[in-house]
Amino acid sequence: MTTASPDPQAIHRMAQAAREASRCLATTAFEQRSGVLLRLAEELGLRTPEILAANAADVSAAAGLIDPSAMERLKLDAAKLDAMATGVRAVAELPDPLHQVSLRRELDAGLELSRVSCPLGVLCVVFESRPDALIQISALALKSGNAVLLKGGSEARHSNAALLAAVQAALRDTGLPEAAVQGLPDRAAVAALLQRPDLVDLVIPRGSRELVLSLQAATRIPVLGHADGICHMVLDAAADTAMAVALVRDAKLQYPSACNAIETVLIHRDAAARLLPALVADLLPRGVELRGCPSCRELAPAIAPATEADWDAEYGVPILAMKVVADLDQALAHIRAHGSGHTEAIVTEDPAAAARFLAEVDAAGVFHNASTRFADGYRYGFGAEVGISTGRIHARGPVGLEGLLSYRYLLRGSGQRVEDYAGPAARAFTHRELIPDP
Amino acid sequence: MTTASPDPQAIHRMAQAAREASRCLATTAFEQRSGVLLRLAEELGLRTPEILAANAADVSAAAGLIDPSAMERLKLDAAKLDAMATGVRAVAELPDPLHQVSLRRELDAGLELSRVSCPLGVLCVVFESRPDALIQISALALKSGNAVLLKGGSEARHSNAALLAAVQAALRDTGLPEAAVQGLPDRAAVAALLQRPDLVDLVIPRGSRELVLSLQAATRIPVLGHADGICHMVLDAAADTAMAVALVRDAKLQYPSACNAIETVLIHRDAAARLLPALVADLLPRGVELRGCPSCRELAPAIAPATEADWDAEYGVPILAMKVVADLDQALAHIRAHGSGHTEAIVTEDPAAAARFLAEVDAAGVFHNASTRFADGYRYGFGAEVGISTGRIHARGPVGLEGLLSYRYLLRGSGQRVEDYAGPAARAFTHRELIPDP
Repeated sequence: MTTASPDPQAIHRMAQAAREASRCLATTAFEQRSGVLLRLAEELGLRTPEILAANAADVSAAAGLIDPSAMERLKLDAAKLDAMATGVRAVAELPDPLHQVSLRRELDAGLELSRVSCPLGVLCVVFESRPDALIQISALALKSGNAVLLKGGSEARHSNAALLAAVQAALRDTGLPEAAVQGLPDRAAVAALLQRPDLVDLVIPRGSRELVLSLQAATRIPVLGHADGICHMVLDAAADTAMAVALVRDAKLQYPSACNAIETVLIHRDAAARLLPALVADLLPRGVELRGCPSCRELAPAIAPATEADWDAEYGVPILAMKVVADLDQALAHIRAHGSGHTEAIVTEDPAAAARFLAEVDAAGVFHNASTRFADGYRYGFGAEVGISTGRIHARGPVGLEGLLSYRYLLRGSGQRVEDYAGPAARAFTHRELIPDP
Repeated sequence: MTTASPDPQAIHRMAQAAREASRCLATTAFEQRSGVLLRLAEELGLRTPEILAANAADVSAAAGLIDPSAMERLKLDAAKLDAMATGVRAVAELPDPLHQVSLRRELDAGLELSRVSCPLGVLCVVFESRPDALIQISALALKSGNAVLLKGGSEARHSNAALLAAVQAALRDTGLPEAAVQGLPDRAAVAALLQRPDLVDLVIPRGSRELVLSLQAATRIPVLGHADGICHMVLDAAADTAMAVALVRDAKLQYPSACNAIETVLIHRDAAARLLPALVADLLPRGVELRGCPSCRELAPAIAPATEADWDAEYGVPILAMKVVADLDQALAHIRAHGSGHTEAIVTEDPAAAARFLAEVDAAGVFHNASTRFADGYRYGFGAEVGISTGRIHARGPVGLEGLLSYRYLLRGSGQRVEDYAGPAARAFTHRELIPDP
């Protein structure tokens, strides 16, 4: 976004500067990290004309080259900039995630252990189209004391440069190092960083499945995110008809391209004759393409035939796969075989079926009588969202600021040696829990 | 340990069986997971003769081929088996790490979110020499509901097979799947698994730096552990002489091959004339080889000259590098350049210097007036230790059972749709914290 040099040495120097900046951020007080965000919110207002001019250049260059929904995401206006500033102020007001004590323990008299939150260090974030992602990610990174190297979509290059200039102005005005938030010039720069686990601590892709998979395949650095969002809704034998129809409609149609939208409905055999006609009557008039197994089609001939490929498809559009299952076992087996570990839901009035589903399904989100679309950091009450992870390591599900944190163990002693706690005359540890600092 | 086939298909089937077993373990009650451990402790007692016979075969085969300290670790006796059984019983008595609720929040009336701990799934553990690692790791994995694929050192193959048989007997007797703990036949089996992030969730190496580095280089699966333990002790201008000498001695000599032993002492210029002679007088008679910078050697000519390579060496033996630094800044810079992020300590009576060190050093453990040797799961009071991580993602520092856990978000609703929380007439979320289940 800032330069055009693909020289790996220059990129590594940028990352080293980011590392230096992250060290500085790690020891800053809450006020300074909130201050830079409040300053950024102001800058977005002050710089509205130049940001919108830069965006207009991107929009006219992209005309006819990107689809209408991508164009919608690319286009900025005063209201969107205002919303960005409001979002930045909201992050500024979140409680401090740093320097939080999650454990305080006396190991022995005068020997006290504490575990204190700290930033991860340097993030590399690759995002597509949407320029507001730059502001949101910068705000989350700065709030949590992390430096960030950003690579946005090339179709938003002027917008991103203008937004980055606002971030760097805010850093400068607050006395924080500008290297805390830097733009990477191109994909080659990202590739150069992916080979350096010593320079980058976490890679965060915000974009398509292809983007996530390509980054995961290219690096040993941990990648936070999810490639697939193949979510199911199980309509149990004891599902309430009206609730089942309303939840399928919401989970499929409220925002079909979201990762937490459902792709497949699994319908208990005993409820199929009751539920299928109601689903078809609700969804077909709304333009949903229905694809079902032979049992579905027997009960509702308006449903098109599904192929095996449908069970593994993330449509992202108003297409819904439907399958009749013999029982909950078969539904669970289908989810194990085809789910992506994102979010799975059951609709049932039977507490035993719900309890079994909640206990057995291995996914980041497991829901009973609620739309899968609730799987989201804002709806969960995290205030801000880094992304949604389907991995089991580090953070899982919607990830708030805590996904950008690690911790350090601090031990404060008065000369204690391990020698005294070993051997036949060993001192015993007290291991007494102390109340963490407020 | 069990078969000799390097067929990758067979290895993948083992991992799939482990995955099935892990699903079963994930839903077991505390009593069943504790039960299998208590049963294992009994089995170790009952099978003492056959385990010791198997071990004798390994010991005689290894005679003259491995060094005395490795032989010491390989050799089992009734007392060591008894200690293993005691360790297994201690793990059985730890509180249940599974099904713990770390967050409970009302999103709206009748819509309740909770975050519940769950196992990671399938672990692949590669360990060297020490056969008791097999029992310790099996106990930790079963306690936390994880399945584990184990590859031990080939010099311990008979011992490992006998110990594995005890684990599998305990699983069988408790009605749990034997596939929960399986032995991998050889390094080729490990290599086949490292290519399958879908089959293995976490790789845990227990052994040399070379082992850790080779596993990290060969896989995209997260590897929990540390390659290097280059720890420093900073002797500040205001260090107490007697404490400094006692802590250096403990941190270097109490167990020199431990990863948390120190390799380098950094001595503040203003204290060098006072501290260096005292250190030399204490350490040289104990057989420690001292290697120092020119300033050290001016003050204490008995110190041999250090080369640049000494600042990056993990000796693992009684050799200590020593360097005089101009101030705390220079000490911190040296640690940034040469530390491995494991454990760093300062000795000082100056609260400001201590506070700055504790705030600024980026390592898993940062200590004031205490030996680095305290960086250990047992000493921290975790009851049991999976390993020590120098990574920032997931778990850092000494890792107890919690390093083997992930979590799932459970959402219990009554038909809520996201549609109702969007748009101009949107319902508001309550986001009210509820008390987690006891």
